[in-house]
Amino acid sequence: MNDQTVRTVFFISDGTGITAETLGHSLLTQFGDLKFRQVRIPFVTTVKKAMDCVTEIRRAGEQDGLRPIVITTLVNPEISSTLRQADALFVNFFETFIAPLEQELGIKSTHTIGRSHSAANSQDYFNRIDAINFSLAHDDGLSPEDLDMADVILVGVSRSGKTPTSLYLALQFGVKAANCPLIPDDFDRMRLPEGLDRRRHKLFGLTIAPERLQQIRTERRPNSRYASLENCRREVLMAEKLMRSEGIRWLDSTTKSIEEIAATIIEEIRLDRHVY
Amino acid sequence: MNDQTVRTVFFISDGTGITAETLGHSLLTQFGDLKFRQVRIPFVTTVKKAMDCVTEIRRAGEQDGLRPIVITTLVNPEISSTLRQADALFVNFFETFIAPLEQELGIKSTHTIGRSHSAANSQDYFNRIDAINFSLAHDDGLSPEDLDMADVILVGVSRSGKTPTSLYLALQFGVKAANCPLIPDDFDRMRLPEGLDRRRHKLFGLTIAPERLQQIRTERRPNSRYASLENCRREVLMAEKLMRSEGIRWLDSTTKSIEEIAATIIEEIRLDRHVY
Repeated sequence: MNDQTVRTVFFISDGTGITAETLGHSLLTQFGDLKFRQVRIPFVTTVKKAMDCVTEIRRAGEQDGLRPIVITTLVNPEISSTLRQADALFVNFFETFIAPLEQELGIKSTHTIGRSHSAANSQDYFNRIDAINFSLAHDDGLSPEDLDMADVILVGVSRSGKTPTSLYLALQFGVKAANCPLIPDDFDRMRLPEGLDRRRHKLFGLTIAPERLQQIRTERRPNSRYASLENCRREVLMAEKLMRSEGIRWLDSTTKSIEEIAATIIEEIRLDRHVY
Repeated sequence: MNDQTVRTVFFISDGTGITAETLGHSLLTQFGDLKFRQVRIPFVTTVKKAMDCVTEIRRAGEQDGLRPIVITTLVNPEISSTLRQADALFVNFFETFIAPLEQELGIKSTHTIGRSHSAANSQDYFNRIDAINFSLAHDDGLSPEDLDMADVILVGVSRSGKTPTSLYLALQFGVKAANCPLIPDDFDRMRLPEGLDRRRHKLFGLTIAPERLQQIRTERRPNSRYASLENCRREVLMAEKLMRSEGIRWLDSTTKSIEEIAATIIEEIRLDRHVY
């Protein structure tokens, strides 16, 4: 691919820029292998800052020889129209969707800047911090009280993806996830670690391809028995056998992103809650 | 607020639903205090599943006596048009924005389902996992090698928000953040902990209102000297004095969300990188 095909995409926001970037990435992934140079400009809260953006967009267009794409979540009409002085393709989420929503809801929107990630004092926010602290405090050691407090208990062999998944569940969904590793002792007895059997409805298993597990463990402890392919194969085989015999729902994390694993668990646990 | 004013909003996706929910929350926060019942339906990958959604949307509309709002990121035209059989206000992210992007870029989009959060094997993904592991392994103890590897080193008194911020930086941005608490010993000497002075360009401070700190610490250790307002006041005062005298950039985390703190740090560190 030569340099001429690289186009610049700007994510411009009056807040953190996280919404603009998340939505922008979703759109860009629909254009497969096209390469983009990505520039994030958060906290554009004044006309002056918007003017600076216009300069930067113009410069990028000249350098690339291609019109930049500008993905924005600006809500202030003055800032937004200042930005439009630049020659670019504009994708503005609020401008596009607010009008039909206002009509449907029968009220005007507040046009408040940077609202979506600024709920620092809401109950939601405290729940998230609570869940993060829970996840950090219960990454591996579990008292009966912990097990009762947990919304979900992740089980699986060491390095199967429990820790990043539990952190993501806490950060994104405010869900309290506890981790419980399945270890050789459990396989010898072919029984779940103590206390888990009575909380079966909260259990969710993660498994992983032995080759991938070997790769991850090798990074941590090269040339160890722990990381050997033979040991990884045995542990994964036994863990899957145990989860199957105990009737635990599980998924294979090998080719899934943290987001996909977390969203799947939320879905399963919710279904469960409807049932129980 | 009486029940009649509660309207149901559906987030429907063929993937994790995270993009649809992010977009939806951003839009809904623009309608201030209006209450919505929120229903997330991820992994709608078949026409059959879309039909189930139609049933659920209809039921919600009848119950509420108000037309539901359906926010979707469906890319498959057949699934999308099935969904449209329901009587609702549709906000379809891809349908709206893909066409202008296709025209600008001069190529057709791939219409691939669930792409945006499924890059499980990309370099980006490994970087994120790396950063998460770094953050977990270096939440409080730091060797000189750790300090060299870190992209940013967060300093501040205990419970000022370093841990959730570093985890969010890792998960969202793949940034390696190390935490270094400022403790009474540092205040006695009025000097940064050892090793930090030579990495000043990587340092970022967090401070917090003493009243809020007292509240957070009290949850952990009620009636302790550690959590007392007097001690919190003293620690915060000394920490701010130390950061000021050492010329460290810092922000007040009291009324900011994790996202805002993280985005601000990224912005500052990036500026720094351009400079150094």
